[in-house]
Amino acid sequence: MEIKNKVIVQAAKPAEARLALLKGKDILSAAQFSKDEIDVVMETAAYYEKKVKDGEVLKDMEGKVMASLFFEPSTRTRLSFETAMNRLGGSVITVAESAKVQTSSTAKGETLYDSIKVVDLYADVIVVRSPQKGAADEAALAADNPVLNSGDGAGEHPTQAMLDIYTILKERGDLSGLTVTLLGDLKHGRTVHSLIRLLSHFGCRIILVAPDQLKMPAEIVADVEKLGVKVEQTDNLQQAAAESDVLYVTRIQKERFEDLAEYEKVKDDFIVDDKIVKAAKSGIVIMHPLPRVNEITVDVDSYEGAAYFRQAGNGVPVRMALLALVKGCVR
Amino acid sequence: MEIKNKVIVQAAKPAEARLALLKGKDILSAAQFSKDEIDVVMETAAYYEKKVKDGEVLKDMEGKVMASLFFEPSTRTRLSFETAMNRLGGSVITVAESAKVQTSSTAKGETLYDSIKVVDLYADVIVVRSPQKGAADEAALAADNPVLNSGDGAGEHPTQAMLDIYTILKERGDLSGLTVTLLGDLKHGRTVHSLIRLLSHFGCRIILVAPDQLKMPAEIVADVEKLGVKVEQTDNLQQAAAESDVLYVTRIQKERFEDLAEYEKVKDDFIVDDKIVKAAKSGIVIMHPLPRVNEITVDVDSYEGAAYFRQAGNGVPVRMALLALVKGCVR
Amino acid sequence: MEIKNKVIVQAAKPAEARLALLKGKDILSAAQFSKDEIDVVMETAAYYEKKVKDGEVLKDMEGKVMASLFFEPSTRTRLSFETAMNRLGGSVITVAESAKVQTSSTAKGETLYDSIKVVDLYADVIVVRSPQKGAADEAALAADNPVLNSGDGAGEHPTQAMLDIYTILKERGDLSGLTVTLLGDLKHGRTVHSLIRLLSHFGCRIILVAPDQLKMPAEIVADVEKLGVKVEQTDNLQQAAAESDVLYVTRIQKERFEDLAEYEKVKDDFIVDDKIVKAAKSGIVIMHPLPRVNEITVDVDSYEGAAYFRQAGNGVPVRMALLALVKGCVR
Repeated sequence: MEIKNKVIVQAAKPAEARLALLKGKDILSAAQFSKDEIDVVMETAAYYEKKVKDGEVLKDMEGKVMASLFFEPSTRTRLSFETAMNRLGGSVITVAESAKVQTSSTAKGETLYDSIKVVDLYADVIVVRSPQKGAADEAALAADNPVLNSGDGAGEHPTQAMLDIYTILKERGDLSGLTVTLLGDLKHGRTVHSLIRLLSHFGCRIILVAPDQLKMPAEIVADVEKLGVKVEQTDNLQQAAAESDVLYVTRIQKERFEDLAEYEKVKDDFIVDDKIVKAAKSGIVIMHPLPRVNEITVDVDSYEGAAYFRQAGNGVPVRMALLALVKGCVR
Repeated sequence: MEIKNKVIVQAAKPAEARLALLKGKDILSAAQFSKDEIDVVMETAAYYEKKVKDGEVLKDMEGKVMASLFFEPSTRTRLSFETAMNRLGGSVITVAESAKVQTSSTAKGETLYDSIKVVDLYADVIVVRSPQKGAADEAALAADNPVLNSGDGAGEHPTQAMLDIYTILKERGDLSGLTVTLLGDLKHGRTVHSLIRLLSHFGCRIILVAPDQLKMPAEIVADVEKLGVKVEQTDNLQQAAAESDVLYVTRIQKERFEDLAEYEKVKDDFIVDDKIVKAAKSGIVIMHPLPRVNEITVDVDSYEGAAYFRQAGNGVPVRMALLALVKGCVR
Repeated sequence: MEIKNKVIVQAAKPAEARLALLKGKDILSAAQFSKDEIDVVMETAAYYEKKVKDGEVLKDMEGKVMASLFFEPSTRTRLSFETAMNRLGGSVITVAESAKVQTSSTAKGETLYDSIKVVDLYADVIVVRSPQKGAADEAALAADNPVLNSGDGAGEHPTQAMLDIYTILKERGDLSGLTVTLLGDLKHGRTVHSLIRLLSHFGCRIILVAPDQLKMPAEIVADVEKLGVKVEQTDNLQQAAAESDVLYVTRIQKERFEDLAEYEKVKDDFIVDDKIVKAAKSGIVIMHPLPRVNEITVDVDSYEGAAYFRQAGNGVPVRMALLALVKGCVR
């Protein structure tokens, strides 16, 4: 794909053999992808994004049904997946449950395995979000149809990581040689766990900025370094921003601290405001998986490198690509 | 449009230039409409109603996505909008939250502005219901796509007012010269606030019947009178009904009274029952935005001028018209 | 339809005259069906199942809207109906309420009659689930469009019974001459109440296995025996299984027992495990309406006669058939 001025101007459909790379597969973890698989997702996303922008009515998934099972609330991810399926001409069946309101079969004590066994006989593809780590893997065991993990507790969020990569490619044209900083709660954030694994394929330098209690798990850093990627860790946001082409911000939740005094001491050190942006490397791209609360101040919104809303929008073409690829439906 | 026995028998599509009047616009307040814009909505609604009755499968919004965001429960309005979008061949993504169950991004503290910024990148048109007055205006600021206010607290409910006007036109053939009475809680009712503004374009006489504590806000009455409309106020329902061609009933909620003794004293004076209908002007049309509890007794249902269920049904063609007009999609 | 080896190999569309048998009708109770009507549903279900398996994109309900009103949670039945409507090319509007979260019009005190009156003007066909016995009949009175009862409290669940019959036909090729055992809480289970009525048309022998407090209501047994069907009652599961071609399992809920000591005494006598299956008649088909908790142990899942997941999957073609037949839309 050719990318210019943040717009997909030319986006060719990948060749048939490459389109088949993900056919029939589950999307469970960012660790499962080869570089070529990631590239096919990016190219297919660009191909669909252009078609939607051109107002084409797609029928790639016509007659197909996607089960959208959100056992934990996540409006953004759910609506993004459902929009993607609709834009492909397919239909959606939805379970959107509040964490506070356990309803229906789950309330009657049914196992996730049994629930998925049944939904697998209704739908052609299954999207699962759960507060339980490993839930998507369990769902994939139960289902013959492809399962897409859209967040499993403190586990992974691979489709978010895919759209993050797509966003950097669109914003910067390339990833190779860039310096990417991940900021915030790197210990519990499934988004950054998935993202750092995908980044490891692109030859970029990675800086991790987190308070001491919320550092990236050592085994994930080790995995990534094994692939030859340079990972630096610091708690100095300003200095990291000065060297970064991309700054990926995540929230630090008060509840994560055992010692609240510790939280009060560090919380202001990880907020991205106008001052940080002004001191940052010129052209820096600011990203965030959203929702944001106060970790990026609203004065940053008007900065042209503030990419977090565009990033959320990229969820639609990327999820269109993933859905159509696992079903072998890219026309 | 030509109407016989309350049925649209002939309905021509408005000319292209008039179809473009609402293209790209938000629908936020009844005050925003010119008479010609209201007429275009009425004509387009009739055009669609006839097509649906004739069993035509429409594709006017094929490939398009409507976000149906109900941050306050409203089954009737939500289902009516979603049916409208489906009948136009479009797709729907839904957030339907209970007032008691704050879920997802809202629960995580995200602003409405941020939520809408993102949904605007998924969907082509956004319908918003909120318990907060002004929420739709805030949403419209965040979105590039058209936003339709489907109720913002004590604010407005312009699409309801549009279907109310459409109902009177279908029931009576014309509005000019009619006497229309609005009854009930005129202080808090967003429906009647929006309706009286639309009525002001049609050269009818308006009577307001409400208990003293629940009268129509003076500034709204003043706005309407500035347009040369005669507005009379009374608390005598029986006399108003004797002079009215249309009686628009809304509920009086006990909770609105500071003094419960006051509520007990007046509550029976504003109930529409068989006795009121018999004493009313011959052919009077009884309307209600629904749901009704006991403010219209069930014995009234069999009266042929009882139009409240037909009125609810009119929500579908009117909302089809509004959705297709703001997107410039009427084919 | 010709059924071989659990696969629909040939499925012809019923003749026009027979397709019209259910046109315009409500589906309220298993007691309403003639044998020929049941047969038409079976044949149409097989016809649709084959088309879906062959990957055909159906448009039989294109442009039509199904209201999916679940005033009590039931993910399985709801998703199955919604999938059915989607597979027919139609659209869906949904109300899915938790029993704990009464929202919207219901919360505002509106009657079911009023709610259905309105939805009837939006949608072309209405599916209703309610915790109240008789709710579907009340809905059918309010609606001009067909109403499908998808469970009304302790009342009936006729579409479940239809898919149960379809499952036995697919698993065994025929029902005539078979011995079918219904097991569990036969007193409160609406599923078995509906199923035994449909079974009465097929010339099979019926065994009922239940604890003393939870036996099938005598009036239902009497109704069925009036049709010449032999019904035997026992509390000996093992012996019944040894004579049965089909074992239909339902759950026994602790809450149903006034005397908990009684529950503890009997509960293990009605669990289907590997031991029961091994001692059962060769080739026995094990069914369950799901969700199951522990009344069938997971070691039974790998037994090839364990049909309960396939049974759930059969809900889609059977509900496609019912929806298209009542609307006269089978193409």
